[in-house]
Amino acid sequence: VAYRRIVLRRRPEGMPVPEDFEVVEDAVPTPDDGQVVVRHSHLGLAPAARIRMSADVEGYLPPLALGETVYGAAVGVVVDSRHPDLAVGDDVVSINGGWQTHDLTDGRNLRPVDLSVAPAPTWLGALGVSGLTAYVGLTDIARLEAGQQVVVSAAAGAVGSMVVQFARALDCRVVGVAGGPDKCRHVTQTVGADAAVDYRGGDLAGQLARACPEGVDVYFDNVGGAVRDAVWPLMNQYGRVVVCGQIAEYNRRTQEGSGPDWYPLLTKSLTVRGFLASRFQHRYDDFLRDASAWLRADRVVPTEFVVDGFERTPDAFIAMLAGRTLGKTVVAI
Amino acid sequence: VAYRRIVLRRRPEGMPVPEDFEVVEDAVPTPDDGQVVVRHSHLGLAPAARIRMSADVEGYLPPLALGETVYGAAVGVVVDSRHPDLAVGDDVVSINGGWQTHDLTDGRNLRPVDLSVAPAPTWLGALGVSGLTAYVGLTDIARLEAGQQVVVSAAAGAVGSMVVQFARALDCRVVGVAGGPDKCRHVTQTVGADAAVDYRGGDLAGQLARACPEGVDVYFDNVGGAVRDAVWPLMNQYGRVVVCGQIAEYNRRTQEGSGPDWYPLLTKSLTVRGFLASRFQHRYDDFLRDASAWLRADRVVPTEFVVDGFERTPDAFIAMLAGRTLGKTVVAI
Repeated sequence: VAYRRIVLRRRPEGMPVPEDFEVVEDAVPTPDDGQVVVRHSHLGLAPAARIRMSADVEGYLPPLALGETVYGAAVGVVVDSRHPDLAVGDDVVSINGGWQTHDLTDGRNLRPVDLSVAPAPTWLGALGVSGLTAYVGLTDIARLEAGQQVVVSAAAGAVGSMVVQFARALDCRVVGVAGGPDKCRHVTQTVGADAAVDYRGGDLAGQLARACPEGVDVYFDNVGGAVRDAVWPLMNQYGRVVVCGQIAEYNRRTQEGSGPDWYPLLTKSLTVRGFLASRFQHRYDDFLRDASAWLRADRVVPTEFVVDGFERTPDAFIAMLAGRTLGKTVVAI
Repeated sequence: VAYRRIVLRRRPEGMPVPEDFEVVEDAVPTPDDGQVVVRHSHLGLAPAARIRMSADVEGYLPPLALGETVYGAAVGVVVDSRHPDLAVGDDVVSINGGWQTHDLTDGRNLRPVDLSVAPAPTWLGALGVSGLTAYVGLTDIARLEAGQQVVVSAAAGAVGSMVVQFARALDCRVVGVAGGPDKCRHVTQTVGADAAVDYRGGDLAGQLARACPEGVDVYFDNVGGAVRDAVWPLMNQYGRVVVCGQIAEYNRRTQEGSGPDWYPLLTKSLTVRGFLASRFQHRYDDFLRDASAWLRADRVVPTEFVVDGFERTPDAFIAMLAGRTLGKTVVAI
């Protein structure tokens, strides 16, 4: 068995292409004292990885070096251990296992997972970083209250489909924004939003106004750009905008975007707040308790999209960025 | 003694002119059961009054009707009372006494003032709504912590000069932005900012960067526009922007402005939050306790700018909007 990893070969310009990545083979590493080797079974892909492929991202996680393994979560099993608390056979999820078949680590990026509670892909989606992101965004950042009006963009995506379901579980009304009639149908019928708005369907402002007759208390922004600008005038007094992702921006960071008028911030006492779920690990136990309970009660359904084959990871990543996947994009190795 | 009030005669286009206002004379009103008449001695002028002179301000306080008395705070004395808790001779401050010599009121807009603690103008400035605004913005909204880096725009203005002093009293470093060398000198020498930046002095971005070598943890935004755009790139991780005023916008609300790029909201986990001090009356007692203590200890100096003569109120208001006054603009009737 070889150790394979996918590294950044060159920095993408705009949308990544397969040639931006390269598979590198090596011998499977052996652990030193205090280390383990995890063999990955599944990788979780995240749009935010695109951010780190650009050279300069001020104030964010450092950019990937050329030749460095691409950043990402993974589920696997410990296959070699010289770590006091981790044994061969332990199932784990890693917040940064990376796009690789094996991970040599001191264990600090690992959490145990119980695969009898949910299968591996769900530990990367509904019970993984995507779920934690939706949960923290709605609770800590938006301070969502029952009965409020929620809009979420990229509602068919990994985080968005969890936002829809968690907000519903928290007794709110949810409108999901997605691209195209198929995704919109998915957002209402499978994910369970009260309504869906097709941002490719024309008259976005009119569609949104009709879908939100009581305005918007919380806008969960995964995309930025035109969708954000269309939701902005609908914000209610004391509205909150959760800035979780800016997918519309990831591929074009050679130029700066512009945001909406700030006047309503004042006249409506709005709050706009960006966050990174990775800085809310202290909320993981609360999240896992609530999300597991919602899964058991069928109030939340997992929405992972599984692609088979390690070598297809870059293609799956590109498909995800292009909006051709639904829910959390997971690679089964 | 006649009762005089200043009403909105027509809606200003851009900067108000004296002809937009009119003095109306009447007999001094007499109170009904549960009412008092307050004779005003001082009026406190606020840029936000300009907002309500425009016809449509979605989500804000309702616009002034033509012929309606202009909105504003006032200090006065009860001269006639049929109210159980208010006696003739009581000194009071009114959150909305209005631009008038007398106020017939049920008393709910009144608070007692102790003129031995501070003179009337200070109850409209440092101990009034301007002070409360600065206090709430720094504490409740920005959650300022000792040792942080603060920038405030319109730093020579009513709220800005209190922000500078309160933030200094809270052991922070403060950079004030103001227009012209005279105001900048005032901001450092009288108000006590650690540094001042002249937004008319050219190369605003460079000036700010040099004045803020450790970046900006809290930007207290009173103006919006170009100053905001220049501070934005300097925000530190977890930075907070307090949106307190958008003076740059008040006179030109026929067109929408555009805000800065949202990408840093995400990459720096920023929070941008608008507020109205009038909705934080529950903090008034805390504010008054702290601000009075700072005044007594000479850690804060009042910065009221007093204009004599009721009829000069519109001129004083226009001078304030044009930036020709320092600190809180107060009219002595």
